[in-house]
Amino acid sequence: MFEGISSTLEFQMSLLLFTALAGYLIASKINQSAIIGEILVGILIGPSLLGLITYTEFVRSFAQLGAVVLLFVIGLEFKIKDVFNLKYGIIALIGVIVPWVCGFFLADLFGYDFASAVFVGTALTATSIAITANVLREMGKLKSEAAKAIIGAAVIDDILGLLFLSFSMQIVKGTISALPILLVIIESAVFIVLGAYIGYTFLSRLIEKIDCTKLAKKFPETVFIFAIMIAFFYAMIAEAIGLSAIVGAFLAGVSLEGITILHCKDYKEGAEYLRIIFASIFFVSLGILADFRSLTLQIIWFLVALTFVAFITKLVGCYIGARLGKMTHKDSTIVGIGMVPRGEVAMIVALIGLNLMIIKQDIYISLILMSLLTTVIAPILLRYVYRKPEISAKTFSK
Amino acid sequence: MFEGISSTLEFQMSLLLFTALAGYLIASKINQSAIIGEILVGILIGPSLLGLITYTEFVRSFAQLGAVVLLFVIGLEFKIKDVFNLKYGIIALIGVIVPWVCGFFLADLFGYDFASAVFVGTALTATSIAITANVLREMGKLKSEAAKAIIGAAVIDDILGLLFLSFSMQIVKGTISALPILLVIIESAVFIVLGAYIGYTFLSRLIEKIDCTKLAKKFPETVFIFAIMIAFFYAMIAEAIGLSAIVGAFLAGVSLEGITILHCKDYKEGAEYLRIIFASIFFVSLGILADFRSLTLQIIWFLVALTFVAFITKLVGCYIGARLGKMTHKDSTIVGIGMVPRGEVAMIVALIGLNLMIIKQDIYISLILMSLLTTVIAPILLRYVYRKPEISAKTFSK
Repeated sequence: MFEGISSTLEFQMSLLLFTALAGYLIASKINQSAIIGEILVGILIGPSLLGLITYTEFVRSFAQLGAVVLLFVIGLEFKIKDVFNLKYGIIALIGVIVPWVCGFFLADLFGYDFASAVFVGTALTATSIAITANVLREMGKLKSEAAKAIIGAAVIDDILGLLFLSFSMQIVKGTISALPILLVIIESAVFIVLGAYIGYTFLSRLIEKIDCTKLAKKFPETVFIFAIMIAFFYAMIAEAIGLSAIVGAFLAGVSLEGITILHCKDYKEGAEYLRIIFASIFFVSLGILADFRSLTLQIIWFLVALTFVAFITKLVGCYIGARLGKMTHKDSTIVGIGMVPRGEVAMIVALIGLNLMIIKQDIYISLILMSLLTTVIAPILLRYVYRKPEISAKTFSK
Repeated sequence: MFEGISSTLEFQMSLLLFTALAGYLIASKINQSAIIGEILVGILIGPSLLGLITYTEFVRSFAQLGAVVLLFVIGLEFKIKDVFNLKYGIIALIGVIVPWVCGFFLADLFGYDFASAVFVGTALTATSIAITANVLREMGKLKSEAAKAIIGAAVIDDILGLLFLSFSMQIVKGTISALPILLVIIESAVFIVLGAYIGYTFLSRLIEKIDCTKLAKKFPETVFIFAIMIAFFYAMIAEAIGLSAIVGAFLAGVSLEGITILHCKDYKEGAEYLRIIFASIFFVSLGILADFRSLTLQIIWFLVALTFVAFITKLVGCYIGARLGKMTHKDSTIVGIGMVPRGEVAMIVALIGLNLMIIKQDIYISLILMSLLTTVIAPILLRYVYRKPEISAKTFSK
């Protein structure tokens, strides 16, 4: 009777957190990123295997908030000028065009119709910053030149990916027109420039002022609430103008990076604690979302080819972009691999395609699994590439 | 288009946090508990007035998690032996019987049928620990004798309230039988004793062990995730056996109170940061839930009488119980007032009654508003009673 009103939320929460812990344990045993462990155990408890939990509305909501909190925390570790520059723009642009073109032709080769092929191409464009950035965070490499390029390019990439999505939908509808696409480009540029400016000059100072008020002395939690509110507000605005919410959250984090809190509870520490819970659930949910039960041999072949194309095109595209920006071979390789994970962005594109009935279940599953596989493969390779020179450097110093 | 998939969550989050901040500001201006500010601004943005937000599934979910996190954090500040003793049991028992009887006769007097009257009585029984405990926490009085009595009695009270609910439903259904009620009593006792024992001896040591493993050194967030998982697991078990989830969360907190973390991130600090966000939203949601639009004069009269009865009966019942336990007049008054808020527990009872179609909208609204009013009145009086001797003590010391 009580179950009918407020039951399963507590069950879901404890199961998700238990799963996350199991993921940490596995990750620690196989010496990999916690993310991979979390996604793997997520698949295990999800509908494909044990069926303990499904991608409920609650899991979806919590995971969505998790992506926002995660990108806010990642943003807090960056300075504005580190993220936006032309070099990263070139990496992003080539790294978007190459996968789009190859993805389109691959789907065409497998006999899918024009509209589906356009969507497959689009799903291959956008990089998931969340996964790579978290791997880099775990390895303590967030401040490296390559990491900055990856994050910067991935942010621009995300924006370009969403532009391609608008573009694809215009094509599919048969109403190609430059105006709405131009509108999204202008809106995005205005939002990012204005958001960064307001955040960096006005909101940062406002937080420093609140920190010194009587209110803050009486309720030291106010600054923390204010900072998290800004994260969600920026995420909301980003979403309202057609960008991904996490672009907004990241921008909020970057804008609020340089503040020192004197009297209140430190919002950076608080955001980090929120991240631990929210992002764990986000990564577990990525595993839960993948349902392997509808796989057929035909789909598996398409999936293998798609994952291969997704991997190679992003790696090559971004490598070329990085080399054009005069980065070293090793750094360019790291950037290329770091941009491979499609993660939640491709999943969102797949979800939109399915909802609009442009793509069918087969392509949907392939896109979901492709983004999962790139997410699993890239961190492993990234750690491998990063570890190699560490060993040789050690050998050298001996 | 993006809005359809993942839109409003970010809007709701930023609005709820903004509302909480406004609540803090108002509370600071009128020198009251932050809770009152949050509930008041919650009413303002809710469907009664501005209509910016409704009690959506998301708000409900988040608020429910908020109550669990809040009670876990409150539990962390208590030792097991401080909570459970016979003295508090007597306060709780008298404080449940008096309101139940008077509530029943009041509803009968207003011409409501037998079943409704039984439910009104039941809604008056259970105290909301969350509100009083948070006021005491804000005032730094959580360790006082009266506070311990309030918390201890409120926990027992909550259990008794839920027993009364089972009892009422048996009466209404016409199938009075001692067996299921006895079963709930035994289950509750076993859960509390066993939960406290396992938590205090086994889980606490397990956390201390995890804290020293290689896993914890690599991923310092694991202990925090583990602690929050236990909180939700205990909440889930409590709910599964028919108790309120927050009783379980509180028990988890009490069980994990005495641990020192050496290597990992401190889960007590992390839980406190979670509380700030989650509990803010919980209290704002209590305001949003109250919809004043269906009020008529008849209902207002009933509401006034009901609130009066709710206030007096709990105060007198618990005062008598406390005096029987040889507490001073002042401490007994504090205990009596501290037990007045019905908060979310009465709201849950009202919700069950409405869902089972035992009570109608008029009684539902009255119960919701009654619990809101007791929630608003009690902290004000509590601060008043606490402040009085502080002033005289200061005068005396001069």
